Amino acid sequence: MTMPLEPTVYRPIVQRALDEDLGLAGDVTTASVVPADCRLEARLSVRRAGRVAGLPVALAAFDILDPEIAVRIVHGDGADVEAGTTIAVLDGPARAILTGERTALNILTRLSGIATATRRAVAEIAPHRTRVACTRKTTPGLRALEKYAVRVGGGVNHRFGLFDGVLIKDNHVAAAGGIRQTIERSREALGHMMKIEIEVDSLDQLAEAMEAGADAVLLDNMSPDQVRAAVELVDGRMVTEASGGLRPDNLRDYAATGVDIVSLGWLTHSVPGLDIGLDI
Amino acid sequence: MTMPLEPTVYRPIVQRALDEDLGLAGDVTTASVVPADCRLEARLSVRRAGRVAGLPVALAAFDILDPEIAVRIVHGDGADVEAGTTIAVLDGPARAILTGERTALNILTRLSGIATATRRAVAEIAPHRTRVACTRKTTPGLRALEKYAVRVGGGVNHRFGLFDGVLIKDNHVAAAGGIRQTIERSREALGHMMKIEIEVDSLDQLAEAMEAGADAVLLDNMSPDQVRAAVELVDGRMVTEASGGLRPDNLRDYAATGVDIVSLGWLTHSVPGLDIGLDI
Amino acid sequence: MTMPLEPTVYRPIVQRALDEDLGLAGDVTTASVVPADCRLEARLSVRRAGRVAGLPVALAAFDILDPEIAVRIVHGDGADVEAGTTIAVLDGPARAILTGERTALNILTRLSGIATATRRAVAEIAPHRTRVACTRKTTPGLRALEKYAVRVGGGVNHRFGLFDGVLIKDNHVAAAGGIRQTIERSREALGHMMKIEIEVDSLDQLAEAMEAGADAVLLDNMSPDQVRAAVELVDGRMVTEASGGLRPDNLRDYAATGVDIVSLGWLTHSVPGLDIGLDI
Amino acid sequence: MTMPLEPTVYRPIVQRALDEDLGLAGDVTTASVVPADCRLEARLSVRRAGRVAGLPVALAAFDILDPEIAVRIVHGDGADVEAGTTIAVLDGPARAILTGERTALNILTRLSGIATATRRAVAEIAPHRTRVACTRKTTPGLRALEKYAVRVGGGVNHRFGLFDGVLIKDNHVAAAGGIRQTIERSREALGHMMKIEIEVDSLDQLAEAMEAGADAVLLDNMSPDQVRAAVELVDGRMVTEASGGLRPDNLRDYAATGVDIVSLGWLTHSVPGLDIGLDI
Amino acid sequence: MTMPLEPTVYRPIVQRALDEDLGLAGDVTTASVVPADCRLEARLSVRRAGRVAGLPVALAAFDILDPEIAVRIVHGDGADVEAGTTIAVLDGPARAILTGERTALNILTRLSGIATATRRAVAEIAPHRTRVACTRKTTPGLRALEKYAVRVGGGVNHRFGLFDGVLIKDNHVAAAGGIRQTIERSREALGHMMKIEIEVDSLDQLAEAMEAGADAVLLDNMSPDQVRAAVELVDGRMVTEASGGLRPDNLRDYAATGVDIVSLGWLTHSVPGLDIGLDI
Amino acid sequence: MTMPLEPTVYRPIVQRALDEDLGLAGDVTTASVVPADCRLEARLSVRRAGRVAGLPVALAAFDILDPEIAVRIVHGDGADVEAGTTIAVLDGPARAILTGERTALNILTRLSGIATATRRAVAEIAPHRTRVACTRKTTPGLRALEKYAVRVGGGVNHRFGLFDGVLIKDNHVAAAGGIRQTIERSREALGHMMKIEIEVDSLDQLAEAMEAGADAVLLDNMSPDQVRAAVELVDGRMVTEASGGLRPDNLRDYAATGVDIVSLGWLTHSVPGLDIGLDI
Repeated sequence: MTMPLEPTVYRPIVQRALDEDLGLAGDVTTASVVPADCRLEARLSVRRAGRVAGLPVALAAFDILDPEIAVRIVHGDGADVEAGTTIAVLDGPARAILTGERTALNILTRLSGIATATRRAVAEIAPHRTRVACTRKTTPGLRALEKYAVRVGGGVNHRFGLFDGVLIKDNHVAAAGGIRQTIERSREALGHMMKIEIEVDSLDQLAEAMEAGADAVLLDNMSPDQVRAAVELVDGRMVTEASGGLRPDNLRDYAATGVDIVSLGWLTHSVPGLDIGLDI
Repeated sequence: MTMPLEPTVYRPIVQRALDEDLGLAGDVTTASVVPADCRLEARLSVRRAGRVAGLPVALAAFDILDPEIAVRIVHGDGADVEAGTTIAVLDGPARAILTGERTALNILTRLSGIATATRRAVAEIAPHRTRVACTRKTTPGLRALEKYAVRVGGGVNHRFGLFDGVLIKDNHVAAAGGIRQTIERSREALGHMMKIEIEVDSLDQLAEAMEAGADAVLLDNMSPDQVRAAVELVDGRMVTEASGGLRPDNLRDYAATGVDIVSLGWLTHSVPGLDIGLDI
Repeated sequence: MTMPLEPTVYRPIVQRALDEDLGLAGDVTTASVVPADCRLEARLSVRRAGRVAGLPVALAAFDILDPEIAVRIVHGDGADVEAGTTIAVLDGPARAILTGERTALNILTRLSGIATATRRAVAEIAPHRTRVACTRKTTPGLRALEKYAVRVGGGVNHRFGLFDGVLIKDNHVAAAGGIRQTIERSREALGHMMKIEIEVDSLDQLAEAMEAGADAVLLDNMSPDQVRAAVELVDGRMVTEASGGLRPDNLRDYAATGVDIVSLGWLTHSVPGLDIGLDI
Repeated sequence: MTMPLEPTVYRPIVQRALDEDLGLAGDVTTASVVPADCRLEARLSVRRAGRVAGLPVALAAFDILDPEIAVRIVHGDGADVEAGTTIAVLDGPARAILTGERTALNILTRLSGIATATRRAVAEIAPHRTRVACTRKTTPGLRALEKYAVRVGGGVNHRFGLFDGVLIKDNHVAAAGGIRQTIERSREALGHMMKIEIEVDSLDQLAEAMEAGADAVLLDNMSPDQVRAAVELVDGRMVTEASGGLRPDNLRDYAATGVDIVSLGWLTHSVPGLDIGLDI
Repeated sequence: MTMPLEPTVYRPIVQRALDEDLGLAGDVTTASVVPADCRLEARLSVRRAGRVAGLPVALAAFDILDPEIAVRIVHGDGADVEAGTTIAVLDGPARAILTGERTALNILTRLSGIATATRRAVAEIAPHRTRVACTRKTTPGLRALEKYAVRVGGGVNHRFGLFDGVLIKDNHVAAAGGIRQTIERSREALGHMMKIEIEVDSLDQLAEAMEAGADAVLLDNMSPDQVRAAVELVDGRMVTEASGGLRPDNLRDYAATGVDIVSLGWLTHSVPGLDIGLDI
Repeated sequence: MTMPLEPTVYRPIVQRALDEDLGLAGDVTTASVVPADCRLEARLSVRRAGRVAGLPVALAAFDILDPEIAVRIVHGDGADVEAGTTIAVLDGPARAILTGERTALNILTRLSGIATATRRAVAEIAPHRTRVACTRKTTPGLRALEKYAVRVGGGVNHRFGLFDGVLIKDNHVAAAGGIRQTIERSREALGHMMKIEIEVDSLDQLAEAMEAGADAVLLDNMSPDQVRAAVELVDGRMVTEASGGLRPDNLRDYAATGVDIVSLGWLTHSVPGLDIGLDI
């Protein structure tokens, strides 16, 4: 069961995207050329194989422009489809369909691109129990949508932001005067619902973090062999996460170490969109 | 002279990105671990060669969090830098620097990624007079920033949205009943400051568009040979634009046709970020 | 076919107008005096002859307050009506109708005033091919609505803002060091969808602008005779626009010169509202 | 002492006016033509005699664009100036001055137009103790500014909206079943800080309103003679207001009746702007 | 007839409350555990006797989350109910009901707490004609809702803010140089719809205020005996208000003085919520 | 070290509170009576003993109105002060100080009231290691501020909202079909940074929750004896929280059970404000 995205979260984002595209004058091409009573049937078609994500978000663009547009979803979020597949059919006033097209596609291609890349990473390491997580390296303004696309792709979410989990990095340790102190200060200041993860780059640091009682440890830029050694040292007493230096071609090596989580920044900052178009 | 981006345009976007990362509780790690009076010097460093774009936008994140942070820009927007180059130095309260880091980097890596890709495309076709343009295939909410990054990379902007130029596509022609009619209707309804471009996929359509008096023509998904024929037919009487099917490896072939503009959707929808970090 | 105004553009403006009138306490008169179940039929009536504009915008005020109010439009936007004509009939809860009355009328009288003045200017020069355009001298916050009212009156829109067209004035020329330089710099920095117009006040400047390849020329504060000379010099190679010093009583003289556009600031900054009331 | 307008009220309105004019691309003319380091001195000059209003509001446009612009006010709000008078001098970056010009002028001409008309109405009836008030017939979104301009012109404000005073009209009376009932219901439902005014169109209604204890009475569309009779009947026991049918040429006749207030819708809905320009 | 609260006023407040509770990730418990097609019937039940207020506001939370939730109101705003009473029944998608529960209850308990306290104060002084009013000591952001709850409780509203009535305090008098001067300045600057109340703490000040023509007088921190003397001195020529030092246990003594209004800050700043829960 | 509140979080809340109090007309009393050049020194004084919280938030009201107001903080957030203590001194333009007074005090009294109550609860159980936590029963729109006030009082925060922690209640268990299933579904759907707490009302349920691997358990409406039994059963393997039925007079009994957390809804929904005034 993929956790959904609340309309109350995504609709303002879609509205802003429409505002950006319409300005104050609106779609001058369509408004000057297409009669108000012209109607269309249009199909959202995937041009390359991938996993669909963001269809309800994209369709909100049409709904905002004209609630009279009727929509039939053929393959919704989470579906794996081949190139050429129609995923939704729109029927209604031609003007609103043509005006909303680009906004809807910009959302859909981006989110489906992320879901497709996540799904591939998940499939790549499927034999192992390791899970794929995203990071905070998301597009400004779209974090909720991109985190959702990762979930649709079969991944899990790491922190949503700076507010919902502690992740202690070397600079924090330096400022506080040591690993133990940082963890103690966080425990002291924060409630019992906040998990504490700490970034380490050596087994010594890892041992110290374990002793200080961190909930999770981020193994930063370690080789698969180093990660394996860390996982053995931890022996199930903390959640282990490998981060940094993971690429599609070495993912499986990391998963084979038994690490709990691999977190991949590129799922959200450098993935190509999935090519999707509107056919009429 | 690259046209700048108004602070009044980008600051609300940066504010929203910060809101997304801070939530209501703020940076619980930094706030619980780093003393309020701790100060830092930090450097924004480019990890791979590329062109810098978005530095003023990224720095606004620090300014919003704490105006006491002093900034020295070493290589500003438009600079081509090698891997390892420091582009800016921050000095001030440690908390605000650590809290703003990810928001600033998310902006900077994305915009510099776009500028770097644009700059490469421009360099690739440099011997020719053809110009590189972006499209409306931008990230929802970030169009002004991404269009700016394209300019920093040496490209030019196409329409900003549906409101500031007419681009007639096949569906518009179908709805209006012909190329001539669409162009006439647009001319009739719109003021003299609005340019009219029309998408064609054959020389017959091109001839009809020229007769009807379009200002520009978008040659859709044509091969370099077809584009060359079109450019010859037009003979300078309209602006010509090639779009669709252009890749880094065939860009030069298109430029060699003498076409005025090549427009590249991937500059904004599928380009990897430029790796940039904050070193302390 | 008058280009419409998107509800997504005008509804926030209507909402702000209602907020301004309702404050936090709402309509204390109606709420304290009129029973909740009281219903009314009311008619929007034009008190003086004119052209209707802004009816959908005005009616949005009632729709926001209470979607149960039924509306029947008798003479919609673009209709020329005599004094005493009912243009729409409302039927529904009395409270919402009385509460929305002033907001709706403030919108409708202003936009119909502009459409009526525009329509008169257009009729005045009807025998000629010259078109009537508005300027950026609009009411802060209402530009989209006022530009729409000009279209309803039969005029065309000039630039919507500083962002969708180049208009070079004497100060720009002075800063850049000459007419040729300004035009070249604009061409260089901007994409092919952006038109370039330049303001001139002599035939010498006009000749220079033509040579430099401007798309249009604004003939500033010239007499009809000067405009005629300019139009002859241009001879169809640029769009010509007369601006400054045009009044209802000399409009026809300007149109007789063959100039393409007359632009009139007073259509939006100094036109009286069209008197419209709500009768019950 | 004219009551001021809070910056926290007017700055969001100025920001919206700038957003409208700048869009996402900004001032493409100035940005492409004027060098970033170019500086200007510019003067706001009144082209026709009138009363200045809205200068701090207009200047906020420049301050938002670039706080480095230095301003010297020569004749501030409330000054009566001759044609050709410089009212403020700006000195600073040329780009921001040119970009902010139209927004600042649109505000200043409108508000000064209202103040000038109000001041003339006030002067016209100066020998009498009657005061000039505005109505709720204001431009959507600009009520606070226009009410302020009326104060600068020497007038007083009526209700700001539906929320801060009771004004009972015939439809309210009809719905409630009589003048006495409406006034009693309002008194019962509302606190002691709320004044109750009632619109009447005959002396019979006036007598009933007086008996029921209204605080003020609006004499609707009455001739000067009828107003005089009403004022005598009231004999100082209520505030009297004449409204409807008042024009510049009969204002003095109404004031001569001894009525307390004349309220003039045209001060805000149909007054021409005061011509003001920016000279460089 | 209690004056209602406009949905256009309260819905943005409910939306902000939901945003605060949902963040970007939404209700992670419900979304991960409860199937999307699960449906519930739930009852809003009052746990202690009191007066219901804010039900339409609270229910808007469910409506925003999912308009498919059907609602049946059993005891609406203004009802006095016993502990254990069901006031509304919800039926619909389980997820939205569980997600909206806390936001709805936080609104309902607070507003019902205020209405209950107000109703008790009103009942306490029922034999007298004195009315209970609230003050501006309200929760930041909730003034419109809390003023409404006071009305539901049978009280009346004092000023809504600084904008809709004059209340002159000792600091104003000190700055202006005397009671007479403050009242004259206010009368001069303000329109006829604005009431003027002045705070006094002695009979001498009261006499001065009466002479200067204030509409109302606030008797600040006076004992019942002092208030009685003041009321006698005023003898119906001004509205009298007692404020400061009023507690549930001495309210009746103040009312017995014949004062017109008792205003109670604690109705809005220190009243416990009324315990209300959602039972399934 | 109390975790601070970001200005970027609280300033919009203060702005909204000012908007609510100023409306469009502003402070008509002060503006009409107090000369613009009048200056004041004013002191924020606590009228009853308590702990200060929210001073920076309250002072932002003055800063927004007029940045020229100078502030000296005598006893900042977290200070325990006696009745009569001056906590801050303001010096500057009289108008802005008088206008901002009520907004600042409404914030300060509410937050200091919460901090004072929290501090008392913390002191009450000081001999024990049990910590005091708040709940989501906060004032709509003020959660971030109220959670901060609890921290200032020495308490810790529970979840900030539905988004940053799992709290499974009986309805969730019923919908999912059992305690084990709910916990498994949450673990499966959510990332490793999310803690899972479950509400139980018997030792049987507690045992099941422990087996299923919850991170924390909320012991709902149990007596101190029941809580003691639960704490013994858990024996440090989960965090234990007592909630429901805790009052100031039995808090110590609960703390004596060794439970980790007592969570108290009344800290935020039913606590009286701390009386604070502005003396001039």
